[in-house]
Amino acid sequence: MLNTKDFVSMKDFSAEQILKFLDTAETMKTLLYKNTKNAPHLQGKTAIMFFTNSQSRIKLSYELAAQRLSASVADLSGSKGAYQNESIVQVGRTMEQMGADFIVVRHPLTGSAKYLAENVSARVINVGDGNNESPPRSLLDLMTIKTYKGGFNNLKVAFIGDIDNNRLTTSSMIALNKLGANVTAYGPPTLCSKSIETLGVKVCSTSFEAVDKADVIICSKLAKEENYIKVIPSMNEYKNLFKIDERMISYASPDVIVLHPGPINRGIEISSGVIDSKYCVVDDQISNSVASNMAQFYLLSMIGGK
Amino acid sequence: MLNTKDFVSMKDFSAEQILKFLDTAETMKTLLYKNTKNAPHLQGKTAIMFFTNSQSRIKLSYELAAQRLSASVADLSGSKGAYQNESIVQVGRTMEQMGADFIVVRHPLTGSAKYLAENVSARVINVGDGNNESPPRSLLDLMTIKTYKGGFNNLKVAFIGDIDNNRLTTSSMIALNKLGANVTAYGPPTLCSKSIETLGVKVCSTSFEAVDKADVIICSKLAKEENYIKVIPSMNEYKNLFKIDERMISYASPDVIVLHPGPINRGIEISSGVIDSKYCVVDDQISNSVASNMAQFYLLSMIGGK
Amino acid sequence: MLNTKDFVSMKDFSAEQILKFLDTAETMKTLLYKNTKNAPHLQGKTAIMFFTNSQSRIKLSYELAAQRLSASVADLSGSKGAYQNESIVQVGRTMEQMGADFIVVRHPLTGSAKYLAENVSARVINVGDGNNESPPRSLLDLMTIKTYKGGFNNLKVAFIGDIDNNRLTTSSMIALNKLGANVTAYGPPTLCSKSIETLGVKVCSTSFEAVDKADVIICSKLAKEENYIKVIPSMNEYKNLFKIDERMISYASPDVIVLHPGPINRGIEISSGVIDSKYCVVDDQISNSVASNMAQFYLLSMIGGK
Repeated sequence: MLNTKDFVSMKDFSAEQILKFLDTAETMKTLLYKNTKNAPHLQGKTAIMFFTNSQSRIKLSYELAAQRLSASVADLSGSKGAYQNESIVQVGRTMEQMGADFIVVRHPLTGSAKYLAENVSARVINVGDGNNESPPRSLLDLMTIKTYKGGFNNLKVAFIGDIDNNRLTTSSMIALNKLGANVTAYGPPTLCSKSIETLGVKVCSTSFEAVDKADVIICSKLAKEENYIKVIPSMNEYKNLFKIDERMISYASPDVIVLHPGPINRGIEISSGVIDSKYCVVDDQISNSVASNMAQFYLLSMIGGK
Repeated sequence: MLNTKDFVSMKDFSAEQILKFLDTAETMKTLLYKNTKNAPHLQGKTAIMFFTNSQSRIKLSYELAAQRLSASVADLSGSKGAYQNESIVQVGRTMEQMGADFIVVRHPLTGSAKYLAENVSARVINVGDGNNESPPRSLLDLMTIKTYKGGFNNLKVAFIGDIDNNRLTTSSMIALNKLGANVTAYGPPTLCSKSIETLGVKVCSTSFEAVDKADVIICSKLAKEENYIKVIPSMNEYKNLFKIDERMISYASPDVIVLHPGPINRGIEISSGVIDSKYCVVDDQISNSVASNMAQFYLLSMIGGK
Repeated sequence: MLNTKDFVSMKDFSAEQILKFLDTAETMKTLLYKNTKNAPHLQGKTAIMFFTNSQSRIKLSYELAAQRLSASVADLSGSKGAYQNESIVQVGRTMEQMGADFIVVRHPLTGSAKYLAENVSARVINVGDGNNESPPRSLLDLMTIKTYKGGFNNLKVAFIGDIDNNRLTTSSMIALNKLGANVTAYGPPTLCSKSIETLGVKVCSTSFEAVDKADVIICSKLAKEENYIKVIPSMNEYKNLFKIDERMISYASPDVIVLHPGPINRGIEISSGVIDSKYCVVDDQISNSVASNMAQFYLLSMIGGK
C-alpha cells in the first residue's frame, strides 16, 4: 500500500494512503479497547525512541503502542551528551546496529528526520523536525475530524493562531488539501505569511473570512510567550483578535468542532467557555494517539526492505 | 471485597480489607519467587507511573510488579515541564485517554491523589501526596509486623521521630488503629503534635512511656536536616533524646522489632548497634514491596467500573 | 562452565571460558536476527540497570538484550540522589530484595562492581568501574577480531592512545594475553606507563615498533580534552605522533583491521581516511553488543546459587 518506508512528511503520501492510516488506526482502536493480551504484530521487533527532550506525552504514546503490538521498546532520549561528536546519521546507524526496526525521532533541526530516514534501513517516524512537520500529530486531528464529519471532501477547515511556526499545522494543512478540504488560515501577519498559500491554503485577513461557515476550527498553538516579544504587539491584543471565542464560533457552521493539540493556553488561545463547550473535542484527539501509533508501526512494518 | 477503586488513603479501608491486601501480597510473594513466567493477571492492562521526582526505588518496585503481572508500563515521571499549564486532573485524563488502567502517583500536594482519583476511572495508587499519606508504604510495615508478630490485636507499636510530617507514619497509624493495635508516638513536641491523637494514637512525653513493653518500634524518618533548623534545637540534642538505641530497646519487649523505611540516617535516627542487631528488620520490608504492589494492582483490578 | 557468578573482571576467566562467551554470543546473534518472538531463556527473571550516568548506548543494549530473552527490565540509573546516604552494597541489597537476578552496573569507583558482586547473590555485570575494567566492552572487540581473524593465537594486536586510563583497553589486554595474542601498546609516556607490562603487554616507544606487522590496531580512546592539559603538550602534537593514519597502517599487516569503541574523535585519534577505509570495522562492534549481552545474561544465569 505505502511506497515509502518512513513516516516523515505528509508530502510523501496520497489521499488514499492517508485514509489507509486512518482506517488502520480505527481497527487498532478496537484491538486496544478489547483489553486482552497484547497483539503479536511486532513480535521480535524493536522500537527505539530518540527524542531531544527526554519526557513527552507523545513519546509515552509510542511506547504504549509498541508494547501493545509486542515490540521491544528502548529509549535513547535526552542523551545528547553521549552523542555530541556524532551526527544524527551516526547515532541512527548505532541504533540500527543494535537492532532497531523503528526509530521514533524528535529533533530540533528541520529536515533531520528525512536525513536520518535516507541513511538507515530502519523505519523512521518523525514526531517533529523543528517547526517543519509532524505527520503523526496530524493523523490525530484527521481521525477526530473523520469521526465527527464522516470525511474531508469540501469540508471548510480554519486554522487560527501561529501558523508559520507550527509543525502540526503544516502537516495537517498538507494532508487536508490532499483530502479535498478547503483550508483557511488566520493569524497575526507576522505569524501567518502569504507563502503558506503554496500548501493550498487561503490566508485570510479577518476572523470572519477564515471561520465563516467553517466545519472545523483548529487552534494553531502558540509557543512560549517570550518567543513573540518582537512579533506581536501584546498578548492582550492577540487575545482580542485571535482567541477562539463564542463570537468566532457564531460565524462558523452550527455543528463546528474545535480542535487543539494541548496543553491549552486557557483564555489566550481559546476562551474558557469554548473549551468547556460541546464544540471542543480535545479529549478525543488524545485517546486516538496510541491506536494511531499502532497503525503507523503496523503499516510501515509491511513495507519491503529490512 | 473492596468498595473503592483506588488506593489513596488508609481511611477508606476496613480492618478486613487491609488484611486482604496483606494476604494477597503473601500469595503474590509465592508467585514472585517461583521465578517462572510472568503471571497473566494484568494482560492487556497499562500502568502509568506519574512521580514528581523522576527516580525512586518505589517507582521501580511498581514497574517490576506490573511487568510480573504482564501489564504494560509507561513512565510520565519528572515531566513537570510538559504539563505546567495543566492541572493534575487534566494530566490524569490524558493518561486515561492513552489507555491507563492504573495511575501510580506521587505529588507534592496533600489531597492531590484523591482529587485525581475522583476525576478518572483509572485506578489511582497514592505513593505520597505531600506529607499526607502513603498507604502502599504502610502495607510494607504491616506485612513485616504480621510476619514477625502473627497479627496486630493488642500489639503495642511505638512511632519515634518526626511524626507530623510523615506520610508513611500517618497511613500506618490509621491502619494499625483499625487493626486493634495500641499505638504510641514520641518525638520533639514541634514534630509530634497532640492533634494526631484523633488517629487513635497516644502521644507520649518520654521515650520510656512510648516504648515501654513495645512489640514494635517504627522509626518515623526525618526529612532533610535543613527542614528542622527552626524546629529542633540541634541534631545533637535530637540524637540524645530520640535516637533509637540500645537504651530504648531495653525498655521494650525482649522480642521487639525495629522498622525503618530507609534510607537510614545512621547514628541520628537509629544507632549503628541497633541497625546491625537482630531487632532491625529493614531488609524484610524492601523484599515485600514488589509482592505488595502486585497485590494492589490485582485487587484494584477486580473492582467493577472500567 | 563458568565458576564465578559475575562478569566483573577478565582476570576471573580462562581462555576457554572467554571463548565460551564469544561462541554463545554468535548463537545469540542468529536468534536475534531471526526477528521472531522473544526467546524464553530468562522468563521470570529481572535485570536492573544501575548506571551513574542515566543515558548511554551500553545501557540501551542491555535493556534490549534482556527483553529479547523475556526478562523484566528496570532502571535505577541516575538516581544518586535517592541513595546518597547508602553504600553501593546497600543499594545492591535493595535491588536484590526487589527481585533483581542481574545487576548491570557502571560506577565511578575502581573495585565497586567487585565489592557489590561479593555482597549480593544477584549476578553482577560490570560495564565500567571507573577506569579499571569493562569486560563486556572487551567481548565486543574480541568478537570482531575473531570474525575477521578466525582466532587469537599469535595474533599481533597493537593498542594506540591513552592506555592507562581506559577500562576497555585493560580488559581487552588481559583477555588477549590469555588467548595467546602478542599485545603491544603505544601512547604518550604519561598515558602509557611501563607498569602495564604486568598484563603481558609490550610497551613500545615508536609507532613502528608497536604496529609493525600488526593484525589488529585498537584505538585506546581519549577522554575529554581538558583531562590532558597537564599530561600532553598539545592535541596537535598528539595527532602527529599517535593518530592512527595511513602511515601507521602501512607498517601493519596488509589485512590489518582497526577497531575503535566509538564515538570517534575524528582527525585526532584516527584520520578520516582510515575511518572511511576498509580497515575500520567499528560498525561490526556495535552490532554485536545486543547478542553479546544476551550471552552474558544466559551464561551467568546457568551458574548455581540463587
